[in-house]
Amino acid sequence: MPDMLGRVGLISVSAAKGLIASVYYKVTGVDVIGIESSVGRVLATDIKSSEDLPAFSRSVMDGFAIKSSDTFGATESVPAYLNVTHEVFMGKLPDFKVNMGEAAKIPTGGMLPDGADSVLMLEHTQKLDENMIEVVRAVAPKENTVLRGEDVKAGELLFQRGHQLRPQDAGVLAALGISKVTVHKLPKVAIISTGDEIVPPESNINPGQVRDINTYTLAALVKVNGGEPVIMGIFRDDYDTMTEAMSKSLNCANMVLITGGSSVGTKDLTPKIINSFGAPGVIFHGVALKPGKPTIFGVVKETPVFGLPGHPSAVMVAFDVFVRGVLLKIAGLSEDCVLSEYSGRVRARIAKNISSLPGREDHIWVKVESRDGELWAVPILGKSGLINTMVKADGVTVVGADKRGIPEGYFVDVRLFQK
Amino acid sequence: MPDMLGRVGLISVSAAKGLIASVYYKVTGVDVIGIESSVGRVLATDIKSSEDLPAFSRSVMDGFAIKSSDTFGATESVPAYLNVTHEVFMGKLPDFKVNMGEAAKIPTGGMLPDGADSVLMLEHTQKLDENMIEVVRAVAPKENTVLRGEDVKAGELLFQRGHQLRPQDAGVLAALGISKVTVHKLPKVAIISTGDEIVPPESNINPGQVRDINTYTLAALVKVNGGEPVIMGIFRDDYDTMTEAMSKSLNCANMVLITGGSSVGTKDLTPKIINSFGAPGVIFHGVALKPGKPTIFGVVKETPVFGLPGHPSAVMVAFDVFVRGVLLKIAGLSEDCVLSEYSGRVRARIAKNISSLPGREDHIWVKVESRDGELWAVPILGKSGLINTMVKADGVTVVGADKRGIPEGYFVDVRLFQK
Repeated sequence: MPDMLGRVGLISVSAAKGLIASVYYKVTGVDVIGIESSVGRVLATDIKSSEDLPAFSRSVMDGFAIKSSDTFGATESVPAYLNVTHEVFMGKLPDFKVNMGEAAKIPTGGMLPDGADSVLMLEHTQKLDENMIEVVRAVAPKENTVLRGEDVKAGELLFQRGHQLRPQDAGVLAALGISKVTVHKLPKVAIISTGDEIVPPESNINPGQVRDINTYTLAALVKVNGGEPVIMGIFRDDYDTMTEAMSKSLNCANMVLITGGSSVGTKDLTPKIINSFGAPGVIFHGVALKPGKPTIFGVVKETPVFGLPGHPSAVMVAFDVFVRGVLLKIAGLSEDCVLSEYSGRVRARIAKNISSLPGREDHIWVKVESRDGELWAVPILGKSGLINTMVKADGVTVVGADKRGIPEGYFVDVRLFQK
Repeated sequence: MPDMLGRVGLISVSAAKGLIASVYYKVTGVDVIGIESSVGRVLATDIKSSEDLPAFSRSVMDGFAIKSSDTFGATESVPAYLNVTHEVFMGKLPDFKVNMGEAAKIPTGGMLPDGADSVLMLEHTQKLDENMIEVVRAVAPKENTVLRGEDVKAGELLFQRGHQLRPQDAGVLAALGISKVTVHKLPKVAIISTGDEIVPPESNINPGQVRDINTYTLAALVKVNGGEPVIMGIFRDDYDTMTEAMSKSLNCANMVLITGGSSVGTKDLTPKIINSFGAPGVIFHGVALKPGKPTIFGVVKETPVFGLPGHPSAVMVAFDVFVRGVLLKIAGLSEDCVLSEYSGRVRARIAKNISSLPGREDHIWVKVESRDGELWAVPILGKSGLINTMVKADGVTVVGADKRGIPEGYFVDVRLFQK
């Protein structure tokens, strides 16, 4: 008599991910913000340069702006001699021309004057008197310069819609004279905590009660992944209360997370509530994932809704495996995420044999230790529902559904917890 | 005639890091904040649990609270029979006792009633009638329970001062009834941009002028590394102007970053200004690092001050190599950073021969590509001062001072740019 959460009713993690990818949900709207607060935000438009960069040909060295042909053939034994007739100042348009046999002193970043086609490095000259320098080495045309438009050409596509802005991108936008950008709004994520035994963290607890852990873990996970948590509060496990909480959440948020109430038990309301708000409703309920088996995913009016397990560690795993990707997608992030799949990982040797049921993806929490310069992943095991494991672990390693375990000493990838 | 920035005057990256580590600078003061906004913040005090967790012995399964001895010897052929006399409700203190031969229905998380020492899983029972179940398997004492204090004991040290709070830590604090924590204030970092040719990003540019890139890159880098940027503005390269900018910065910030003006040239003021504010002043000026050679580090009145190169890519490298560590230190982060050294890295094969001068640490920007499932790091080369390389690259790989380069196909570590 396998129930909905028995082995028979479970779908694989990859099938669950496929279902998540197959459903439509709304991406957030847009905001126009200043570049000084743009880091981490997702572009809602392509960005092209409206001008050449640099806007003028300039020197990349301290030295002398010259005609390179004046130095052709110059050597230690047959030096060339140039008259220093002018000087280029930073930020100023040179109001002179460099003629044959002449040199203009120029700083790094200075604008190349008319007539000059290259820059002779200060270090490659000898000063003979106030107005004459000796050159012992030929300078090639364009040497030590960056020409107008050589860096970025007017009309060039610099960033694509869906790109998450990095620190240097803010600098690049500034260089192009773009001080504001159109980005997707941060997704608002409503967090509903359910359970008749749950009380707020500031409460004293009576026997049988526990404080709300998942709201705070989820709010922080939402924040570090670019969302804006909306803490809805703690609700009793009854149909009317939950319906009202869900209705309010759908009105104010781009995604809804419900914790607790997703085990199949007498009080299992979450799938019923999700379905009561209309099609498509619940997309899957129960995944071959440990911890995280009772995870529910549904869509209500183009808004993704997750029913997450009650155990804090299962909440973290379900967030990592399923919620995070949906959050990034509704934030407008483009799906080209090759690198994010690899980042935040370290390679380490597993410090203990790990066994696992084939057909189920197991997420094992580990502490990473350096032993003789080599990284080891020490599994932090414990009964489900404990929180001290959450404190001790540094990250998680995955035993795929096709594996029966990992022998001690084997290399594993550890995904470090986000901060 | 090697000048201060010639090869002779340069110190190695490791010597520079040693000097940075040897100087005293002030850690920021403290704030008391709610746990809902604590992620990423650094604890200013140790945190011990003031109570046992769980606060009561509870079930980790849906099933029946029983005396385990009632099931000893039970098998398929010789089952045990129990009377279901009571039920445990979530969040409620059970007002009954489980006696020999009795069972109380209990949900996951329910409080273990007096008399019961274990929980029989629902799946391991057969219901015979409304009040009787059949048990075909022995249950061990404590099975499927978590005992009071088994997770966390009252008085146990959970987090140490200097720990950067992660999402799950907020949940753990909530579980312990701690809704506020004492954390270090975010370090304020004053950013001074210098150069007579620099104009704000919203300006049109005249010939010879360039827009301020570094302020925006630095402000974003400060933000993603846990600081609060204070944009001071753009200042002309003269002693009085710079002295005033520095003075204002020291009054309002925990760290000062000055960009531009750190090349040895006619307008090099930064080290003079730093020294004018008192001991110890400039600690080093010029590092065997490419890009980033003209980096200056000094301390003024226990406040760290960096003079950063003018080139945007050099600013990024100098931030990564030197500034970031100091920022984390003044933010109160403990120095046990084994993992942060490893995180944000991927291993890839270099797609092109890279040559490098021994004695100098070279930072090479790369784009990471997946080819037939293998990661390759493609060097993005270009003249110094270009910004398109900042757009194209995904991260950086380092050629150590003891190496002459990296042959094509060799494996390298790529540190991905922060977002």
